[in-house]
Formats: sequence, C-alpha cells, structure tokens
Amino acid sequence: MIEILQNSRRTFIGSLLTSGLLLAGDPVKAISKNRYRNMEYSNAQNDKMILGMVLFDRFQLLDTFGPLEMFGSLKDKVTIVIIGQKQGLVKSSAGPAVAIDYTFENAPKLDIVMIPGGGGTRVEVNDALFVNAVKKLAEQAPHVASICTGAAVLAKTGLLDGRNATTNKRAFHWVETQGQQVNWVKKARWVEDGKYFTSSGISAGTDMALALIAKLFGEDVAAGIANGAEYEWNKDSQHDPFAKLNGLVD
Amino acid sequence: MIEILQNSRRTFIGSLLTSGLLLAGDPVKAISKNRYRNMEYSNAQNDKMILGMVLFDRFQLLDTFGPLEMFGSLKDKVTIVIIGQKQGLVKSSAGPAVAIDYTFENAPKLDIVMIPGGGGTRVEVNDALFVNAVKKLAEQAPHVASICTGAAVLAKTGLLDGRNATTNKRAFHWVETQGQQVNWVKKARWVEDGKYFTSSGISAGTDMALALIAKLFGEDVAAGIANGAEYEWNKDSQHDPFAKLNGLVD
Repeated sequence: MIEILQNSRRTFIGSLLTSGLLLAGDPVKAISKNRYRNMEYSNAQNDKMILGMVLFDRFQLLDTFGPLEMFGSLKDKVTIVIIGQKQGLVKSSAGPAVAIDYTFENAPKLDIVMIPGGGGTRVEVNDALFVNAVKKLAEQAPHVASICTGAAVLAKTGLLDGRNATTNKRAFHWVETQGQQVNWVKKARWVEDGKYFTSSGISAGTDMALALIAKLFGEDVAAGIANGAEYEWNKDSQHDPFAKLNGLVD
Repeated sequence: MIEILQNSRRTFIGSLLTSGLLLAGDPVKAISKNRYRNMEYSNAQNDKMILGMVLFDRFQLLDTFGPLEMFGSLKDKVTIVIIGQKQGLVKSSAGPAVAIDYTFENAPKLDIVMIPGGGGTRVEVNDALFVNAVKKLAEQAPHVASICTGAAVLAKTGLLDGRNATTNKRAFHWVETQGQQVNWVKKARWVEDGKYFTSSGISAGTDMALALIAKLFGEDVAAGIANGAEYEWNKDSQHDPFAKLNGLVD
C-alpha cells in the first residue's frame, strides 16, 4: 500500500516535470512519513490531521476555498490535499483549474473529508463510481462535511439517511430528491449531526468550517483564524436569511 | 501577436496532453475569437470582459477565490483567466495548486487586473521582473484591484503613489513600507480611487469584488450574485472592525 502510494506520487510528479510544468512544491511534502507508515486513523498530538477536499469538473470555487482558507491557517495541525477521480486538473465552474494531489485509489487515510457543490454535482450524483468512492472515503473518516450542493452527492451515498442535513437554498428541492430518507433542514446556515456537517449555499461553508475548527481545536482557535482573515464569522448555525429569501420558510 | 498567442496556447495544452494530465477544458475556450482579433480594449456590449487574476507561489486562497466566485457568476459578461510568471502550476500558501492559463508575455488584453495577497508577496515585491510585469498589465487595464497584501505589489509599481489605498490590517505597517507615497487608509473594508480598488485582509476582497461588479454592471446585479452565493454582502466600505482590533485606530 505504501509503495503503491509512493509510486503514484513519483509517476504524477514525474509527468509534471517531463511536461515542463512547474510544480511549486510536492503537494504532500507536508505530510510526515510517519503518517504513511501508520495508515490507521490517528488523532495523536504529534501527527497532523489530513483534510481531503474531493473535487470534480465544474466544482464551485468558494465552496472549496472558503473552508480551505480557514483550515489553511492551521499549518501545524492540518495538511490539505485535493482528491479527484483522475490525476491532472479539474476545472471549476468559474474557469480556474486546480491540481489533483491524489486519486480515490491512492488517497491517504483522511481525518476530514469535504465535498463542495457546483454545477458538476448534477452529473456526479449519477456516476456510481464517483458516489461509491465518496462513500468509501466518508465511511472511513471521523469527520465529513459537504458544502452547498455537495450534500446531494453525500446524500446519494445513503450515509445521510435518517440524519439532519442542509444544502443550498436555491437548489433545495433538487437536492431533496437525491436523499429522500434524509431529514432536510430548510432554515440553517449549517447542520451538525454526528460526524456529518452539511452547510447551506456557497459562502455558508466558511462559517461551517470555522464551527468544525472550533469543535476540533477550540473556539479560540477558530475565532483567531476568522480575525486573521478579517472575516466576520457567523457563529449561529440558525442564522439563515436565505431560507426565507428563497421561499422555503415564511 | 495573435499567432504567438495561439501558438503558446497550443504548446501549453499540448504539453498537458503529452504528460497525460487531464485538462478538463481549454481555459480560454470561453473567450470569443473576436476578442483575439481585436486586441484593443473594448467594453462593447457584444464582447465579454476579461478578468486576469495574477498568481504567484504562496498566494492566499480566499483573496483569490472570493472575488472570482462573485465574478464567476457573470458567465455571459466576464471571462476569468489566471496569469503567472511561468506556465504550469502555482501553489497557494495553504497547499492546493492552481493552473496558470497565460504568462505575462502571452496574456490577452485585460479589462480587469487583480492581484491577491499571501506570504509570497514578501518575495514578489523584491522581484523587479514580476513587479514590472504587474505594472505593465495594470497600466493597460481600465480596472485594477488588489486584495490584502496584494496592495504591497501594486504599491511597489508606483501606480498607487498619491492615491488612497488600503490593505491587510495585521500586515499594514509592512505594506506601508512598499509605497511611501501612497495615502494608506487605516480604517476601510476597501478603498476606491480612480480605476484602483484596494481591499483589506483576505475576506474583504469579496465585498470589494461586489462593489466593483456594482460599478460595472449595476447594484442589482451585484446583490443578485451575493444572494445566489448566500453571502451577506457588506456594502459599506467604511465598516472595518479589524482596524481597531489590530490597533490601527482607537
């Protein structure tokens, strides 16, 4: 397993170098070797957590990079990796393309799995291989979060069945159809149910990410990160003017 | 000029294909051919504007993708391209890497130039080639914006001399040293002075981007985008609790 992982890394990085592409640094350099030696989940103090953001064609930019901005401040506690179906680039709905660090097959054991929304979710919910790969990652991870219509993919895995969850308020009725056993919450900035966090549309992911950071590392740490980003953190998961704006509640 | 541009695109895309990297789509496909035929600046109704985000090693994620999320909703009005010193990937301070669509040499004529902040600005302000390339792009563009410590690079070009500008409130005193002829505004979410917009730290760029969208396309358009992103837009450029938090004002 370790060799497969290392070989995949070499092949990917090799192909970047061969093509003359500049990789500004090994995306996984920050993950300690001990992490690979012990592939079992470990939240030990000396070991950084690994956050895997699952991306796909036409993902939403702010769904992805709002939360990763907040977790990105925890350099000594969390390593961020981008996970996708194939090595190479995935293009956001707005245009810019992001590099995949790991495929589903060679991803390291993740402590946090996140999946954003975006126009591409309309395709991905019908891709059984993609949905099953997300299910496998989510089952194994102690913390799972979706942003916006990423909840549609997570719901499609069945893992949200019987749980409370929320999603984008404009796409609410479509997302509901992807998980009819889910208790969809119409008015919420984000919802926490067990190990699952689901957030409302696009910018809500940033508030949810800070709530998850507060859960994992303490409220002071989360508040410090928000202040550093000059971000006015909405700490109230019930504060959601967009449910009314979109006619979901009176 | 047109041929050089097209050849560069073929070479770049060719190298991606050769290396087996999946490029989910030509990053510039959305730019109409007419755009290339007429390289002069044109804000004609039938022609989309081009927004170029200048990236560099260790750029800040939310500085970049907050504004691009908002402009990304204007698919029929604005095409987004990522510009850098070299083709390939640039790595953010948080880890994830983004693909460069154009270098400084082959960039199309830009209607909007943006530059984010991040740890990398500490290096870039001392790279005369980089600063001069940003200066050239900014001089030619009718709209120029910096986010966070991106203002340090913009100040270093000299183009902000004698103008009002703001920047990240924690890094304020360092940024001041990069443009001693600039009138640095301590308390502001963002500052508009002529064609230059400069915003405060990290998340402030999103509010500034909406202000620029309001200027270019109308306030209703900007408000609609904010609502679609479930984003509570701070429309008041003077609302800045972080100036006091960081001891810049009483």
